[in-house]
Amino acid sequence: MRKALTTENDAFGHALMDHLEGRPAHELIERSDGYLDVSAGGDTYFAAPTAQQARIAEHAVGRVLDVGCGAGRHALYLQERGREVVGIDVSPLAIEVCRRRGVRHARVMSVEEVDGSLGRFDSVVMLGNNLALLGSAARAKRILKRLHRAVVPGGRLIGETLDPYQSGDPDHAAYHAENRSKGRMGGQVRMRVRYKKYRSPWFDYLFLSRDELEAVLVGTGWRLAEVIAESGPCYAVRIERLGDS
Amino acid sequence: MRKALTTENDAFGHALMDHLEGRPAHELIERSDGYLDVSAGGDTYFAAPTAQQARIAEHAVGRVLDVGCGAGRHALYLQERGREVVGIDVSPLAIEVCRRRGVRHARVMSVEEVDGSLGRFDSVVMLGNNLALLGSAARAKRILKRLHRAVVPGGRLIGETLDPYQSGDPDHAAYHAENRSKGRMGGQVRMRVRYKKYRSPWFDYLFLSRDELEAVLVGTGWRLAEVIAESGPCYAVRIERLGDS
Repeated sequence: MRKALTTENDAFGHALMDHLEGRPAHELIERSDGYLDVSAGGDTYFAAPTAQQARIAEHAVGRVLDVGCGAGRHALYLQERGREVVGIDVSPLAIEVCRRRGVRHARVMSVEEVDGSLGRFDSVVMLGNNLALLGSAARAKRILKRLHRAVVPGGRLIGETLDPYQSGDPDHAAYHAENRSKGRMGGQVRMRVRYKKYRSPWFDYLFLSRDELEAVLVGTGWRLAEVIAESGPCYAVRIERLGDS
Repeated sequence: MRKALTTENDAFGHALMDHLEGRPAHELIERSDGYLDVSAGGDTYFAAPTAQQARIAEHAVGRVLDVGCGAGRHALYLQERGREVVGIDVSPLAIEVCRRRGVRHARVMSVEEVDGSLGRFDSVVMLGNNLALLGSAARAKRILKRLHRAVVPGGRLIGETLDPYQSGDPDHAAYHAENRSKGRMGGQVRMRVRYKKYRSPWFDYLFLSRDELEAVLVGTGWRLAEVIAESGPCYAVRIERLGDS
């Protein structure tokens, strides 16, 4: 999502806040073709990382920028292990949830707004499918160049996403084909978050195969260094910052 | 819902069928003001009745018409206890689920279509909030008169619903007020079922306080005989058929 949400449209944040305060909460994801389902996030937003997720997060060294920090799941984990973490999220209520849960540095900010005011980082994390916040091929280029400036030489980006073409669901396959026919990337999912009376603005979420990810990185100052883990369509990567060009 | 659904819009039925076949399924309810949440039904559609629900269902004696039989929860329970049960539902996939689960008599039919072709019944059940299928004050009158003709003298209707005015949720209270300002009953909820790519047509679901229920029954040949059970805003009633006028 591109800019800060308001209390009127922060569907994701309201779901997180309700969950934090003990009310049952189901974040719903609506796709532009009307496909609607319960988010895969749910309770996991508040759960400690699994052993596998912890191993992935451990690749974030030094001072860490957590993009799309949500309820603070990864920020808390890394903070407890001695990293200095700055969490950003476009959801004001998510940031409030992070603060209440003990994330020391949490700011309402889009990844497209990251600048020198946050200082420089050794690592950026975009975990739990957050690499999809790259949004589109064009937006990905802008964001990656911006993150390049925010990260020290030798820095890294640890990301998780999924290969959309591994889904066996014909409704998803039809959506990918429709995307391509419009000149969008297959896994460029236009969606919004809904929760009770709240609806976020529509935004693009970009799922990428590994080949697509490598293509998106070209010219941005980043290079795919390693696939850290994979499980079905999901995979985690370490992307390394190239020298200043 | 008023008429048979098709495979294209039978959102409820698709959710039931996916659940039956072991796929995760979340039925979603969207209200006309955009309020969206996970159905309270969910897994309970397939669960055996609780002790309390079983006690309520036991009030259905003799030959039973199960209106809105869904996945056959109550039909199976009553059938196993020797009642002859006919289940009807506007969802073709729900009826298919009922048959696969062993409901012996299940038909795709709206309660507004009930006629002599089904034979006569000793009891009608509208359990699990199904009394709300009465839909609106006008529709309720039509349905109740039709059920009066379908039931033998001395017959009964066992129904469950909830008193909408006991909700503490301000979004619900605002909806009730808006309804009244339009000349609708407060608890007359216009909604549709959504599940993945499927959306049902919009339909009215009528939640009633006890006073409202008694008022709706006037002139239909039915009379509120007993509140069998209540739990918070939810309550179950035995409604008795008056003699032919």
